[in-house]
Amino acid sequence: MARERLELPNELRRDYILERHVIIASARMKRPTDFAVPPKVETEGECPFCVGNEKATPPADILLIRSEGGVTLSKDNDGERRSDWLVRCFPNLYPAMEPSTEALPTSEPLRPVQVAYGYHEIIVESPNHEEHPGQARVEQLQISLEASFTLMRRFLEDERIRYVQLFRNHRKEAGASLSHTHSQMIALDSIPKNVGEELKAFKKYKRAGGGCPYCAIIESEQGSSREVFENEDFFVLAPWASITPFELWILPKRHEADLLRMTGREVAHLAKTLRSTLGAVSRLLTDPPYNYGFHTAPKGLDALDYHWHLEIYPKLSLWAGFELSTGVYINVTPPEIAARSLREPVKEEWASLD
Amino acid sequence: MARERLELPNELRRDYILERHVIIASARMKRPTDFAVPPKVETEGECPFCVGNEKATPPADILLIRSEGGVTLSKDNDGERRSDWLVRCFPNLYPAMEPSTEALPTSEPLRPVQVAYGYHEIIVESPNHEEHPGQARVEQLQISLEASFTLMRRFLEDERIRYVQLFRNHRKEAGASLSHTHSQMIALDSIPKNVGEELKAFKKYKRAGGGCPYCAIIESEQGSSREVFENEDFFVLAPWASITPFELWILPKRHEADLLRMTGREVAHLAKTLRSTLGAVSRLLTDPPYNYGFHTAPKGLDALDYHWHLEIYPKLSLWAGFELSTGVYINVTPPEIAARSLREPVKEEWASLD
Repeated sequence: MARERLELPNELRRDYILERHVIIASARMKRPTDFAVPPKVETEGECPFCVGNEKATPPADILLIRSEGGVTLSKDNDGERRSDWLVRCFPNLYPAMEPSTEALPTSEPLRPVQVAYGYHEIIVESPNHEEHPGQARVEQLQISLEASFTLMRRFLEDERIRYVQLFRNHRKEAGASLSHTHSQMIALDSIPKNVGEELKAFKKYKRAGGGCPYCAIIESEQGSSREVFENEDFFVLAPWASITPFELWILPKRHEADLLRMTGREVAHLAKTLRSTLGAVSRLLTDPPYNYGFHTAPKGLDALDYHWHLEIYPKLSLWAGFELSTGVYINVTPPEIAARSLREPVKEEWASLD
Repeated sequence: MARERLELPNELRRDYILERHVIIASARMKRPTDFAVPPKVETEGECPFCVGNEKATPPADILLIRSEGGVTLSKDNDGERRSDWLVRCFPNLYPAMEPSTEALPTSEPLRPVQVAYGYHEIIVESPNHEEHPGQARVEQLQISLEASFTLMRRFLEDERIRYVQLFRNHRKEAGASLSHTHSQMIALDSIPKNVGEELKAFKKYKRAGGGCPYCAIIESEQGSSREVFENEDFFVLAPWASITPFELWILPKRHEADLLRMTGREVAHLAKTLRSTLGAVSRLLTDPPYNYGFHTAPKGLDALDYHWHLEIYPKLSLWAGFELSTGVYINVTPPEIAARSLREPVKEEWASLD
């Protein structure tokens, strides 16, 4: 009889035979009875991310504070919970990954497993509950991006960490358990499947003499029916094989593998591009739920071997039995329609921010 | 300027660089305004799948009819819509794939495309609106499985067809647009990504001297904390790296690549196993939405190179920004907990059917 492992630490299990990983998150475990009851109505009066409620969450390991000279990096010291913050980062109370030093679970034949080693952090993007990226002040959005990148740098200092995923779930339908504006970051000690597939495809394209495929995509899609918007630094695209309606990519025009090597101007333009793009999506589609994730080079990768970008997935349809079984997607909105509908709204949003 | 393709036929597009395909389904196209309005309330009084409403759907290309000697295979002839059926199969009104003979769209560099060639069919599993597999009469379920397999054989006669996906979406939250009990079948002219990955992993395992990995999984998991149930012909498992809470696999114990080579007894036992498993899931989790899909060998594959099975995914959680970005899943219910909760209920369901 195999032993049962029902306690911490979380496990990172690999499928019997596939290169597919799952984090078995015992720490936030749900039992059958948790599913059988209707979900609780959220009581937003008690938002743990709002100013004044900092005690409801762990101390912040990164705070951005308004100071006399501008914005200062700080943190909560022992027992303290500062409430004069602009952006507040702290460990997730129910982390998917932890910097655990506990003993490794033992892999058996066909059942590979390791401790789910890493970090899982919340980034509260504004003291204002509703200041989501699609309606944020550009300055605030820029500060919150800078805070995320600072956090990412910290995690990469841990020599075990190979990849840091910065992502955002907007609204409950897209997996946000709280509605206060926030992103999440998960740091991993391995290169995740999707990034691995991109790196492999990147290499294949380069080997065939094509250079950077993302640079080629930008060049090839400029002026196409899938172009949504561009400015000095960024290109916004409804990609050719969009797997959801209104999937959008924000690509930096300057070839760069690692998002942490963005210049100050690029970060400012990213904030404004993100604000314009999500503002237009929100206006066109009545504030839909969405997920987005930054794709960047794993630690140590050569600068020529990747091209960082942001992928946005509005949650307007769902993947069902066909997609789950085949890994082939059905998308009912051609990207050409998405791009055409968004082109003017994004331009207007951008202009309104000047 | 690239031309816009906004009309039929549906396109099967491949990503710029990834081995990832999407069907751009213009035929069921949704425009931005379709997403901005709240979804219509379903008026189930007008169920197009119920007996008497056959005119609301295309003529059936496969009907199973109760006859004097038993059950007979039939179909709707010109203009006819028979209503004395037990199982009724007809083309989806908004097909993802069609046996189109229209001209191929043209692939351009970085933008591979072909016509979404294939078939997309609805299988109405019972004249009784609510006779879902978790509560069906075993005899009816067996008849509906036989009808599906007959349909699958038909599609495989088309020499362009390589793979046929039989799947089921249960309840609206899992993608079923109508609540009348039904499955769907999509026939493809290529091997879909997930099946391709399984075949590759299968080969790798075999090359390493391991024989059939699925046979090895069954042997290794018999008596483990992940075993849910077994009978003469089938093994029910909460798999090691379950990507959703209560993911379940039904595996045939006899090694067989192709589900169409099931014996009559095996089909009968499959019906009863499916009925017991989904009946227990429904009882334990209050009739949750779910998706399931059969995994079988592509046409022409050697009998030793695959092991068909059924994968069931209850929809109890959602994949969000992290899963979409990384391809790594977070599952809050260890399969050991799922198996432990289901073991008795499945056994009881099975016994109640004798």
